[in-house]
Amino acid sequence: MIPMKRLLPFLLALLAVGTFSLDAQERVRWKLAMTWGPTLSPFVDAVEEMASMVEEMSGGNFVIRIDASNKHKSPFGVYDMVKAGQYEMGHSASYYYKGKNIAFQPLTTMPFGMTAPEQYAWFYYGGGMELMEEAFRPEGLLAYPGGNTGNQMGGWFRTEINGLEDLEGLKMRIPGFAGDVFSELGVTVTNIPPGELYTSLERGTIDALEWVGPGMDIKMGFHKIAPYYYTGWHEPATELLYLVNEDEFNDLPENYQAMLVAAMKLSSYNMYAENYHMSAVAWREMAEEFPNIEVRTFPEEVIAAMKEANEELIAEAKQESPLFAKILESQEEYMEGVRAWTKISDYDYLTDNLEPED
Amino acid sequence: MIPMKRLLPFLLALLAVGTFSLDAQERVRWKLAMTWGPTLSPFVDAVEEMASMVEEMSGGNFVIRIDASNKHKSPFGVYDMVKAGQYEMGHSASYYYKGKNIAFQPLTTMPFGMTAPEQYAWFYYGGGMELMEEAFRPEGLLAYPGGNTGNQMGGWFRTEINGLEDLEGLKMRIPGFAGDVFSELGVTVTNIPPGELYTSLERGTIDALEWVGPGMDIKMGFHKIAPYYYTGWHEPATELLYLVNEDEFNDLPENYQAMLVAAMKLSSYNMYAENYHMSAVAWREMAEEFPNIEVRTFPEEVIAAMKEANEELIAEAKQESPLFAKILESQEEYMEGVRAWTKISDYDYLTDNLEPED
Repeated sequence: MIPMKRLLPFLLALLAVGTFSLDAQERVRWKLAMTWGPTLSPFVDAVEEMASMVEEMSGGNFVIRIDASNKHKSPFGVYDMVKAGQYEMGHSASYYYKGKNIAFQPLTTMPFGMTAPEQYAWFYYGGGMELMEEAFRPEGLLAYPGGNTGNQMGGWFRTEINGLEDLEGLKMRIPGFAGDVFSELGVTVTNIPPGELYTSLERGTIDALEWVGPGMDIKMGFHKIAPYYYTGWHEPATELLYLVNEDEFNDLPENYQAMLVAAMKLSSYNMYAENYHMSAVAWREMAEEFPNIEVRTFPEEVIAAMKEANEELIAEAKQESPLFAKILESQEEYMEGVRAWTKISDYDYLTDNLEPED
Repeated sequence: MIPMKRLLPFLLALLAVGTFSLDAQERVRWKLAMTWGPTLSPFVDAVEEMASMVEEMSGGNFVIRIDASNKHKSPFGVYDMVKAGQYEMGHSASYYYKGKNIAFQPLTTMPFGMTAPEQYAWFYYGGGMELMEEAFRPEGLLAYPGGNTGNQMGGWFRTEINGLEDLEGLKMRIPGFAGDVFSELGVTVTNIPPGELYTSLERGTIDALEWVGPGMDIKMGFHKIAPYYYTGWHEPATELLYLVNEDEFNDLPENYQAMLVAAMKLSSYNMYAENYHMSAVAWREMAEEFPNIEVRTFPEEVIAAMKEANEELIAEAKQESPLFAKILESQEEYMEGVRAWTKISDYDYLTDNLEPED
């Protein structure tokens, strides 16, 4: 028997500590599957930053393990694996799954669509997030912006494209709606996981490909095989995607939900800034270090044919999917207003300041 | 005396709870002082969103009370109050304090400087945050981006500016470096707290003012008195500022520090998107609802004189402050690369797509 007066201080100390324990942090371990390989910067940087923010904010209690495509072996299976709960969350791009639902396409980007600042305004203040939810929630999935690449370059070609006839029969890796547009123009279109791009181009499985922009492309070495580098039209603001299994999300404590959402959103914006930076640096180096790269813009007749095919395909997809129609109409209506603002603000300003002062 | 065998289960339960208590959440109450009044959207939205994210992520344990300028009565005293620890943190703009240190100016924006996407790339990936730290940490302050307005309009004028002679003797509210530039051009320049702008214009204390852009300006009613609305040159990417007292920050638990930093950064990016949205909406409505507003661009001779005065003032300030020189050189060097990328990506794309498709 221990005398009560010796026990009491110890007991009181324990009680005091116990009062705080109402706020105790639950230990949570999650797994995330990426479409990308383990070192694909800045896509992977965004995911790693997101996970490390969550870990820090939770005092080390909410830990997200990241599996790259070399681990799970299914780059385009991320959607299904998260839906099935095999992974609690994933990082990919919604337009990779347009075969499942064409309405996923405009939640990434659209040919001749919005720029990144316009699109973030639409997502968060112009009704975009609500439409994203309408597309993904019936699948038991929560979806969030996963990082913007900014305006993508039009891709690498072995030969120059001087007119529509040069596209005929070309084999090209180009995903999403832009691939359908090129397909209408006679291109044989395919999507290939990021990890196999260089080999496919080298072996002649494809004659051309688009990837992202100088920041990411140069490191892939495409310019060694396909020196014609075209400016962009097809992905003016490619937004990657975080997918979260809804049931798993609902099982999280509310404060962990808040941390996860904040970390996803912040890492996405940061990726936009990081890729802008990487592209600027690479664009500058390119001119000096890789003088064999020939920067080109598609000829007017090609651009005109792309726009026409794009409009036709949009009209068809609107017929096919009421949700695609609803999302496109929201974006078209939004662009009517936002593009005029972009013109009077950044565009007109840049026109007078294309060469920064020394 | 209580028998040990009756105490034991109770004691063990307390011990189990005690184990969790290592992760217990400390209750923290902070106060934030804003330069703005209590309803100034989107500036105040950013601050409120930041505070509410911190509160949610901490499970209600870290609460930040927000005091607007009508409470603390010192809109431009935010810097001093945070430095003194009277408030743990503040929300303002660094260029309001350029009288204390001219190096604070380019951490907000510079006339003829970077656009918002360029500037975020510089802040987070191009060395900007390190320079911000170099400017503020010696003052015992931590500084973070506090929300970007995007490209600001050049302001509201009672009369049209057809040449340099129309600026002579004009009384204008325009803060920061741009004010110094206008001062060189013969304008009598002043800064006035946001809450007093309309009255000052109405009473003729000033003849002209710049505030932000259509999203915020229209609600202020300036167009009723000064119908000439000029496009921007002077604040291409005004970044507001979160100031945090360093000692107070260091006293926070590490996970609260992480929450606070994440919430500040996320709310800043969000404010950029929100103001882009508000501006787009207001710009569209303006044409229909306020046909008396006359949108103008400053004449070429005025722009040329502004650029010249700006370059001279930059050269002087570089002499005066080695840190200003270091920051400006970093920005100038950065712009050399990033502006070329902006041109080949968004700018050239927009040139072909100024009128969105129907």
